[in-house]
Amino acid sequence: MRALTFDKRLRFVMDRPVPEPLPGWALIRVQLAGICKTDLEIMKGYMGFQGILGHEFVGTVEACDDSAWAGKRVAGEINAACGECELCRNGLGRHCPVRSVLGIQGLDGCMADYCILPSENLIKIPETMSDDMAVFIEPLSAACEILEQIHVTGNERAIVLGDGRIGILCAWVLSTALSNVTLVGKHADKLDLARWNSLKTHLHSEQIEPGVDIVVDATGSANGLAEAIAMCRPRGTIILKTTIASQVQIDFAPVVINELTVIGSRCGKFIDGINLLKSYPDIPLEKLISARYPIEQAITAVARAQQKDSIKVLIDL
Amino acid sequence: MRALTFDKRLRFVMDRPVPEPLPGWALIRVQLAGICKTDLEIMKGYMGFQGILGHEFVGTVEACDDSAWAGKRVAGEINAACGECELCRNGLGRHCPVRSVLGIQGLDGCMADYCILPSENLIKIPETMSDDMAVFIEPLSAACEILEQIHVTGNERAIVLGDGRIGILCAWVLSTALSNVTLVGKHADKLDLARWNSLKTHLHSEQIEPGVDIVVDATGSANGLAEAIAMCRPRGTIILKTTIASQVQIDFAPVVINELTVIGSRCGKFIDGINLLKSYPDIPLEKLISARYPIEQAITAVARAQQKDSIKVLIDL
Repeated sequence: MRALTFDKRLRFVMDRPVPEPLPGWALIRVQLAGICKTDLEIMKGYMGFQGILGHEFVGTVEACDDSAWAGKRVAGEINAACGECELCRNGLGRHCPVRSVLGIQGLDGCMADYCILPSENLIKIPETMSDDMAVFIEPLSAACEILEQIHVTGNERAIVLGDGRIGILCAWVLSTALSNVTLVGKHADKLDLARWNSLKTHLHSEQIEPGVDIVVDATGSANGLAEAIAMCRPRGTIILKTTIASQVQIDFAPVVINELTVIGSRCGKFIDGINLLKSYPDIPLEKLISARYPIEQAITAVARAQQKDSIKVLIDL
Repeated sequence: MRALTFDKRLRFVMDRPVPEPLPGWALIRVQLAGICKTDLEIMKGYMGFQGILGHEFVGTVEACDDSAWAGKRVAGEINAACGECELCRNGLGRHCPVRSVLGIQGLDGCMADYCILPSENLIKIPETMSDDMAVFIEPLSAACEILEQIHVTGNERAIVLGDGRIGILCAWVLSTALSNVTLVGKHADKLDLARWNSLKTHLHSEQIEPGVDIVVDATGSANGLAEAIAMCRPRGTIILKTTIASQVQIDFAPVVINELTVIGSRCGKFIDGINLLKSYPDIPLEKLISARYPIEQAITAVARAQQKDSIKVLIDL
């Protein structure tokens, strides 16, 4: 099958064997895949992953023990958990210590004609939802995770730092729960297309009034956390949405003095993403698609995703 | 009056003027003061403070607008707040942005014959409580703050990193709420005297089983946070009790991947410290007193506090 692989360097290959589903797993024919910032980090060495890249996809189940899945259009949660450890038993399979992670850890990803996942990871895409919307379920669910981790009253002032794809999605999700959300970024064009719902946008962060209740760091840069610490009010909350491979040097005294809460936030439950799309069918996800390429041009697609003005680059299969 | 002052260097002086209480403030005759790690950090430049050092004390009110306080034996909360801002109105005066802080920020401290504080900061010491117990109310309340910031069920496994004074106090406080608390330190003698209640102790951290629910970093060292991150379970909580003046370089990826919550924790409400002492009158605070000196020997006292085997050094006035 066709696949984009990474083994210290990026390769498009034509002769990768189709993966064999394990018992309880499904074989999925991929239709559409998205390139994520995490994929770009992996290419810099993050997680030490080698194999087929990609964890954002829409596809159709081609084979599965459970015949009810056959032919269904699906997205899939990316953590393949053991199902038996304490975390799995508590519904936190995405933190299972022996999990594999699609295209990130020990499991070939979805930038290929086929991928495999446990059937319990699959979620059916509603018929009215386009592939172009559905391919955002994974990152949208990751943005929804914030509202699962913190309790909000609706009256908080929130700032999202970073006008990349995850920053925009986090800002959109927060704007469904809070009336005062501002997306702060460095790119006027990205901020322009992020305008939706009650979301405010702000170029650069210099003039942001400090004392913010909730700050989301989605900058993807080493400075984001320090910036978030500086603008957060005492006893306020910082959500870290950035997995930066490099080490960061931070003055932590203000976290202690101001008794800040810093919460790392990663994947979410796909049902939350799907429910959000059902409640807000006008959420302008398609505006985030900067470019799309056939799988044969996957290396060009990655190069496009690495450009500063890219938001979401898709790969058609 | 006699005082220990810091203005880039430490001085014991005999001729410091007695401070004038502001309206609503009290003049306190200090009987006993404690040297805190924060005092030692200030001497390295932390907070840029200059003036009389010290924020842990027991004293007697000598003058106050409110005559009910006259002659009362008191401890005092160290943050002098404006009383009018939003944080003050929400009962978070200790985070008031224009606060002064006894011996730390814009307000002379208590290592002197007299200090001043707003009378609303004062708390009466129960008659049955010795000065040597009462001088621990400030750090003990800071330890109690943890249980105000997080919700515990009692079944969590907690590790406290650091066998210094604040580490021991945090471990003692946690052991009143959780049955499985281990204090991890580098000094067998300090761990020996920390044994109280159900608290377990552990020399060095190497063999600690990871997957800990709650990790308190009270190491006072730059490595503490990284160590806490490594041993905390997915979705677990890290309490930062260390104000380290220097910048720390940390790999934050595990905070995001494991969705950890990192909570800065500073001062607490004195009533919590006093109530704890009432509930646990056998809490062996006096064992933490490594040495005591008259104020004239305050510089020697500081040198003693800087020694690795010191826990708490007191200054008699």
